[in-house]
Order: sequence, then structure tokens, then C-alpha cells
Amino acid sequence: MDSRSSVRPGARTRVRAFVEDARFQRVVIWVITANAVLLGLETSEPLMDAIGPELHALDRAMLAFFVVELTLRLYAHGWRFFTNAWNVFDLLVVGISLVPTGGPLGVLRALRILRVLRLVSTVPSMRRVVDGLLAAVPGMASVGALLALVIYVSAVIGTNLFGATSPGHFGNLGVTLFTLFQTMTGEAWPDVAREVMAAQPMAWIFFVVYILVVGFAVLNLFIAVIVSGMEGVGELAEHEASTDAIMIDELRALRAEIAALRAEMPSPAPR
Amino acid sequence: MDSRSSVRPGARTRVRAFVEDARFQRVVIWVITANAVLLGLETSEPLMDAIGPELHALDRAMLAFFVVELTLRLYAHGWRFFTNAWNVFDLLVVGISLVPTGGPLGVLRALRILRVLRLVSTVPSMRRVVDGLLAAVPGMASVGALLALVIYVSAVIGTNLFGATSPGHFGNLGVTLFTLFQTMTGEAWPDVAREVMAAQPMAWIFFVVYILVVGFAVLNLFIAVIVSGMEGVGELAEHEASTDAIMIDELRALRAEIAALRAEMPSPAPR
Amino acid sequence: MDSRSSVRPGARTRVRAFVEDARFQRVVIWVITANAVLLGLETSEPLMDAIGPELHALDRAMLAFFVVELTLRLYAHGWRFFTNAWNVFDLLVVGISLVPTGGPLGVLRALRILRVLRLVSTVPSMRRVVDGLLAAVPGMASVGALLALVIYVSAVIGTNLFGATSPGHFGNLGVTLFTLFQTMTGEAWPDVAREVMAAQPMAWIFFVVYILVVGFAVLNLFIAVIVSGMEGVGELAEHEASTDAIMIDELRALRAEIAALRAEMPSPAPR
Amino acid sequence: MDSRSSVRPGARTRVRAFVEDARFQRVVIWVITANAVLLGLETSEPLMDAIGPELHALDRAMLAFFVVELTLRLYAHGWRFFTNAWNVFDLLVVGISLVPTGGPLGVLRALRILRVLRLVSTVPSMRRVVDGLLAAVPGMASVGALLALVIYVSAVIGTNLFGATSPGHFGNLGVTLFTLFQTMTGEAWPDVAREVMAAQPMAWIFFVVYILVVGFAVLNLFIAVIVSGMEGVGELAEHEASTDAIMIDELRALRAEIAALRAEMPSPAPR
Repeated sequence: MDSRSSVRPGARTRVRAFVEDARFQRVVIWVITANAVLLGLETSEPLMDAIGPELHALDRAMLAFFVVELTLRLYAHGWRFFTNAWNVFDLLVVGISLVPTGGPLGVLRALRILRVLRLVSTVPSMRRVVDGLLAAVPGMASVGALLALVIYVSAVIGTNLFGATSPGHFGNLGVTLFTLFQTMTGEAWPDVAREVMAAQPMAWIFFVVYILVVGFAVLNLFIAVIVSGMEGVGELAEHEASTDAIMIDELRALRAEIAALRAEMPSPAPR
Repeated sequence: MDSRSSVRPGARTRVRAFVEDARFQRVVIWVITANAVLLGLETSEPLMDAIGPELHALDRAMLAFFVVELTLRLYAHGWRFFTNAWNVFDLLVVGISLVPTGGPLGVLRALRILRVLRLVSTVPSMRRVVDGLLAAVPGMASVGALLALVIYVSAVIGTNLFGATSPGHFGNLGVTLFTLFQTMTGEAWPDVAREVMAAQPMAWIFFVVYILVVGFAVLNLFIAVIVSGMEGVGELAEHEASTDAIMIDELRALRAEIAALRAEMPSPAPR
Repeated sequence: MDSRSSVRPGARTRVRAFVEDARFQRVVIWVITANAVLLGLETSEPLMDAIGPELHALDRAMLAFFVVELTLRLYAHGWRFFTNAWNVFDLLVVGISLVPTGGPLGVLRALRILRVLRLVSTVPSMRRVVDGLLAAVPGMASVGALLALVIYVSAVIGTNLFGATSPGHFGNLGVTLFTLFQTMTGEAWPDVAREVMAAQPMAWIFFVVYILVVGFAVLNLFIAVIVSGMEGVGELAEHEASTDAIMIDELRALRAEIAALRAEMPSPAPR
Repeated sequence: MDSRSSVRPGARTRVRAFVEDARFQRVVIWVITANAVLLGLETSEPLMDAIGPELHALDRAMLAFFVVELTLRLYAHGWRFFTNAWNVFDLLVVGISLVPTGGPLGVLRALRILRVLRLVSTVPSMRRVVDGLLAAVPGMASVGALLALVIYVSAVIGTNLFGATSPGHFGNLGVTLFTLFQTMTGEAWPDVAREVMAAQPMAWIFFVVYILVVGFAVLNLFIAVIVSGMEGVGELAEHEASTDAIMIDELRALRAEIAALRAEMPSPAPR
């Protein structure tokens, strides 16, 4: 892919051949899987009490392996490494584990497991699935933006109307947004609604309108994904258009041929 | 669009050119977005205690901007302004904020945020999305009417059968309608059902039949939306019908051509 | 439709013309709608205390109207009346109201509102919607039977395994079936599961397997309905098959024509 | 199917003819159905107290019938019996009932009802439905693997972050996996979330991201099933491709014919 590398078949080319080798890839996949199991085992307290230091040492060894692997790939590809979003993803999820996790960054320790998502970027079939899922996102963008707007507007209305009545669910904009997200997933909304309706009997209008509007918008989000998932129909349409064009061309050529034949034919009149 | 305006290129035409200018539209979109943030901030009590009067003044300034903008557009388009449903929508959501909000109309204060929905009418891509969603509504009308009828009939039956047993959920027609709406969203219905079944053991028949019938109707509502959303299939069918017609015409013309050729041909007999 | 009636243009024919008249149909629709409102009002206790007898009298008058209407239609169509399932439906829902409702049949009183479903059989567009919905049922039958079998088998297993632990949810086959129906609608199953798991920790296997299997089966029920609802694809396929057949016939005829032309042509050899 | 059997038309062939006879199949289906009812009745304690021994004897008789039937089929087909997955299924579900059910294997007693699933393997139309459902599974495999990975990663994160705050829901990896499965089915997650958020206010990020990601993945699982279920589109595409190929061949043959005709034609020049 890199034309300059054929000119200078030095260390960089040999490193690239090594990191792109199928056997090396398989080793990487096995280390990721083993790391996933290891990080799962580390959540078990009895196990950590027993062989905690050993598990930590093994984890650090695996992390070192990933750092070396990424450094090699970075060296092999140079700046082009960053043109592939999956490479940046790899760098990020490995990088998280290298940040010192004392104090306010303690949550990053829990995110070390994100490394395991490298399975997605390393196994080609998983990568294709995720690429396929992400392909549906642009089609969802406009309906998603509309949905976000509807939720925001409803949250401001809800906070204004019910903030005093039910501070636990509508106390401020953040709390209301969470309550409305919960209502969107269709979960436990009647409890919230009945609590508010005890003081403001007409509150059912807000909930029913919100559920119908958001339900309709979510349904349309689903349809956007379904339509983008059903490539069959689109491909069929394309195939049809191309074979139809071939046939129409063929028919017109035939007609021209016959017209020529007719013109060339000995006229019957002289006989 | 207005042929009369070319005859009288006066103030009205210049105003229209101004309000339809892309730069002016962009200013309007920014003011709406800023207004959305502002109305969100106004829900925060600590912030209102600190700089409440300033926020209110800013909000009134923005409202004044919208009033001027709409007046200009109304002047520019004259009565035609009302032929576009989106214009009427703009007028309505801005109008709500102008109504004095004392006493029984206090709820309208909370509805000021609806102004922000002008984003939908002003940003062309959002407008297309909503127009697309609304296009699915007629296809849902007949199933929706049937669903409403089923819910109404079930509500009357439920009120008659369970009104005495569970006044909190089936006490009168309004309460029952809310309970059945809640059951339709699949939320917390077993609590309701078990409460009623404690006194009337056969009540499960009502709930199971209602859930199956309504579930089936809602599923068909979804399908109506999916079918109208999958324009691909319909467009393909139309495209096919038209190219097929071209091909059949072409084939018939060819056949006529050959028949003519055969008629004109020197007959082999005389030889 | 009835050839005999043209021979004997007596009372029967005139009655049929009357009951099938569009104006009479409209009167029937209005009476049904008024009856729906009336039966809704009858659920209100304050209203019944005030004008209960008047409402009952009005209801009886409307019922009398329906009885007369059905008698006329029965007379007009004779035994053919019963060949249309909608007519039998009308007869049934009106008949329910005529059964004396004392004692064990008291529940039938609540079912009087089913009369209102005659809106469906009387308004042609509603009738088409329901006919369309019912058309999807045969496609669901086999998956539905499988689902019923899975639920029954799960209910027997659940009753045997958890009957002693949680008699309220798995005490006998009927109770378990209700619990599993509730779980199928995805409602409140974690409460049930955690109650059982407190005594039998491995019970999660039963719930997870049941939810996955039933969820998959229900999804396939949905797909059966979606596929039958998306007539577009089927119609397109049929249209395609017929126009393709026309085109292939046309092409073969053309070829035969040209072969004949070639055979008839003066052979170039003798020259 | 077995060419050797025509050479040796002995006992094996006669047994096969017997077990594959439609009347025998019908008897088997009836015995399975009766057994389903019987095992349902056995869950009723009052009935077991009254006629328990009789029901058990009847059940053992039916089990004996199944054992004989399977032995006959095993003899009739020889080792080929095991090449059909449905036969292995039959053997397994009948075999479960033969295992002694004392002590730790007591749960197997409850699984005797699985025998009833032989209805699926014996009734051809049910068999086709299940074969159809299973055909959708490979299409779901890659999205399913991704979903499993996301749930595992989320479970490790959840256990690390919330294990101390909410041991009942996030105490160890197993408990967290169950909680996340419950959240995936959209059930009672706000209760869990609010419990955690009381101590860790930012926990909403975990729940909202998890619900959105898993919801999107599950939606894509559904779409995989829908696409595989909508064979119509695929079949239409195939049918189109084949008829289009016929037509294009036909058109090219026509053109060749006409070119030949033109070549053979008496040239107009000599005249």
C-alpha cells in the first residue's frame, strides 16, 4: 500500500510484514481473550485475596505486550497509522490503562476492561459487523436530533410544571431528563405519573402526549435502522435498473438492425 | 412565486428578499438555539435567584426579535402566509408567549419553551424529517381508530366489572382509560391484574384478551409506519412497471417491423 | 345477487333495498355511536343517580332499534344471512343484550358495550382493516402453536420446580401460566425471579432460557405479521412474473417470425 | 433411501415401513398429546392425592410406548438414525425420563415434560416452523457475539464501579450479568439505577450508555431475523435475475439471427 516502502525495504517493511502476519494476529487475539478472562477473575474478591498479586503481574505483562504491539504497528505504518479509526480506537483503549489511576481518575481503573473491545477491531468478522452497524447511524441522525429536541423541550416543560410537586423526579433539568429517558424506555412511568397526578390531576396529558410522540419518534428511528439494514431491496433495485438498461439497449439495437435490413432489401416493385 | 410582486417591486418585495435571505435565516436559527439554552437555564432555581431579572430581560428581547421577524414575514407574504402550515405553527408557538399568564392560564408559561420547536420549522432538514413522519399518519388512521374503539369498549367493560373492586384503577371511565393506556404500554399491568384477581379470580380473562388484542393492533400500527417508511419497495415497483411498459412497447414495435418486412419481401413462388 | 328475488319482486326485495340503502346505513352508524356514548355515560354513578331511568329507557329504545334492524336484514336475506361472518357477529353482540342478566350471567351486562363493535361491521373502511388484520392470522398459526407449546411445557416445568418455593407465582398450572404470560410481556419478571432465586439460586437458568426462547418466538410471530402486511413485495413479485412472461412470449414469437422470414427468403445460391 | 435395504427385504425393511406408516405416526402424535395432558394433571396436588398411582402407571405405560417406538426406529434405520438431528433430539428427551431421579438429579424429573416437545419433531408442519426459525440463527451469530462481548465488558465495569455500593445487584460478576440481562429486557432498571445513583450520582452515564448500546445491538439482532424471515425479497431478486438472464439470452439470439439473415440476403448491388 505504501509505494515508498518498496524503494526502502528496510526495518519498517519487515516490521510491517511481522505485525500483519496472520499468525501474529492470532496470538494477539488469544492474548486479548485471555486478558478478558483475567479482568473478569479480578472482580472476584476471594480470588484476589488468594492470588491477587499474581493476577496483577499477569495483567501487567499482557498490557506490556499490547504496548509493544501498538508501538510496532505505529513504527510500521508511520503517520498513516492514524488515518484508520480502528487504530486510534486501539491506541485509546490501551492508553486508558497507562494513565495513573489515583484520586479523581480512579474510574479509569474500571475502564481497563475496554481493552477487550480490541477483539472487535482485531477479528475481521466482528469489525465488519460494527462497520455495518455504524453505517446505519447517519440515517438515524436527523430523527435522533428531532428526538433529542423533543426530550429537551419536554424536560423544560416538565421541570416548570411538576418541579414543585415531585422534586425527586422533576426537581431540576438533569433529574427530569433522566425521568424522561426512563419513561422513553417504557419503565415505571405509571408510578411517576400517579405521584404527580395526585397533586395535579391534569398531568396525564403531559405523560400521554410525551409517550405517544416519543414512541412514534423511536419507532421511526427503528425504521431508519431497518431500512438501512435491508440492503436487499436497494441492491435489487440497482440490479434491476442495470439489467433493464441492457435489455432496452439490446431492443433498440435490434430495431435499428431490422430497419437497416429493410432498407437494403431488393424492392419488390421492379418485378 | 407571487406574480403580482414583480409588477409592484416595492417595500413588500424587499422585505421578502430580506426575510428569505440565508444569512437572516441563520441568525434566526441561532436566536432560537440561544433561547432554548436560556429557557433551560431559567429552570435552575439558584441561577434565577442570582441573575433572574437579567435572564428575563434577555428572554423578552428574544421574544421581541421573534415578534418582529414574524411581523416582517406576515407583511412580506400577506394572506398567503397562512397557506403554509409551518407558518401557522410559528405564529402559534410565538403567540403562546404573548398571552398574559396570570391565574388559570399559568400553564401557558411552561409552554413558552414550545418556541424552541421553531427549530424544526426553520431548519430545512428537520422540516423534511417531520414532513416524512407526518406522511405516515394517514396510513395509521384506520388502525388507530380501531385501536381507540377497542380501548373505549374495554374501558366501559372494565369500569362495569371492576369499578367496585378496584376504584383506584377502574373507578370511573377516565381512570380506567388511563389504566388501560398504561397496560397498553406494557407497564405494571400485573400489579393491577393481581389486585383485581384477588377479589374476582376470573379477571385474568379480561387482561389477557385485552393485551393480546391491543398488542396485535399496536403491532399493525407499527407495520403501517414501517410500510410507509420503506418507500424503496414502492419506488422499485413503479420503476419496474414503467421500464416493463417501455420494453413491451419496444417488442411489439419490433414484431410489427418484421411483419412489414416479410410482407414487402419478394415472394419465393415465382422462381 | 339472489336470482330468485328478480322473479318474485315482493316484500323481501323491497325490504332488502331498504336495509341496504346508504341513508339507512348512516342512520344505523349514528345510532351505534350514540349508543357507545350512552353506555359510557352509564358508567358514571352521579349521572345514574340523577337520570338513570331516562338513560336506561333510551338504551332500551336503541336496543329495540337494533333488534328491528337485524330482523329486517334476516328477513331480507333469508338463510343466506348466516353465510357472512359479519352478520353472525352482529347477531351475537346484539343477542348478548337480550339475555336476562340475573345471577351467574351478570357479567353479560358488562358485555352489552360489545354492541358498539358493530361500528366495525357497519363502516366499510373499518371492516376492510379488520379483514386485513385477520388475513395475517393464518400466517401466525404455526408459530403461535409452537409458542403455546413452549409456554405449556415451561409451565409444567416451572410448577414442578418452583411450586413449593413460590406458591403465589408457581402454585399450580393456572397460576404458573399467568406468571409466564406476564414474563412474556416482559413485565415484573425480575421480582418473580429474585423471589425464587433466594431459595433456588440456579433458577436464573429457567428464566433466562424461557425469556430468550419466548422472545425469539414472539419476534417470529411479529415477522409473520410484518411479512403478511407488506403486500407490496408480494404484489411486486406477481406483477414482475406476469410482465416477464409476456416479454418472454413476445421474444419467442419474434424469433419464430424471423426464422420464418429467413426460410421464405429467396436463397442467394441460384444467382 | 437405503439402497442396501432393497437387496435384503427382511425384518428391518418391514419395521421401517411400519414406523414410517402415516397411521402409526398419528398414534404417536396422540400418545404425545395425551402424555402432555397427563404431565399437566400430575402438577395438581389434589388430583395426585386422589389418583396419583393410577396417573403414574399411565405415564410409565406411555414412556414404555416411546421406548419401544424409538427402539423400532433405531433398529429400522441403523446408524443412519443418528444423522438426523431430530432423531437425536427424540432420543435425548425420552432418555431424560429413564435416568433415575434421586438426589442431585432430582431436577431431571421436572424435565420429563420435555418429551412433549416431540410433537415438534413428529408433526411435519411444526418441524418446518422450527427449521425455519433455526435458519435465522447463523445470521444472528455475529451480532449476538458482539452483544455478548458488550454485556461481558459492561458487567466487569459495573462490578468494579458499583460492587461496593450495591452488592445485591453488582456484588460479583454473576450477579451483575443477571442485573444487566434484566436491564437489557428493559425491566426495573430505574430502581437499580436510582439505588446506585444515591451513592454515586454519575452512575446514570453507565446506565444510559449501556441501554443505548445494547438497545441498538438488540435492534440489529431483530433486523437480522427480519431480513432472514423476509425471504420474499431474496426470492424475488433470484427470480428476477434468472428471468432477466433468459431475456438477455433471447435478445442476443435474435440479434444473431437477424445478422445472419442480413448476411444471407441477396445483395441489392447486382441489380
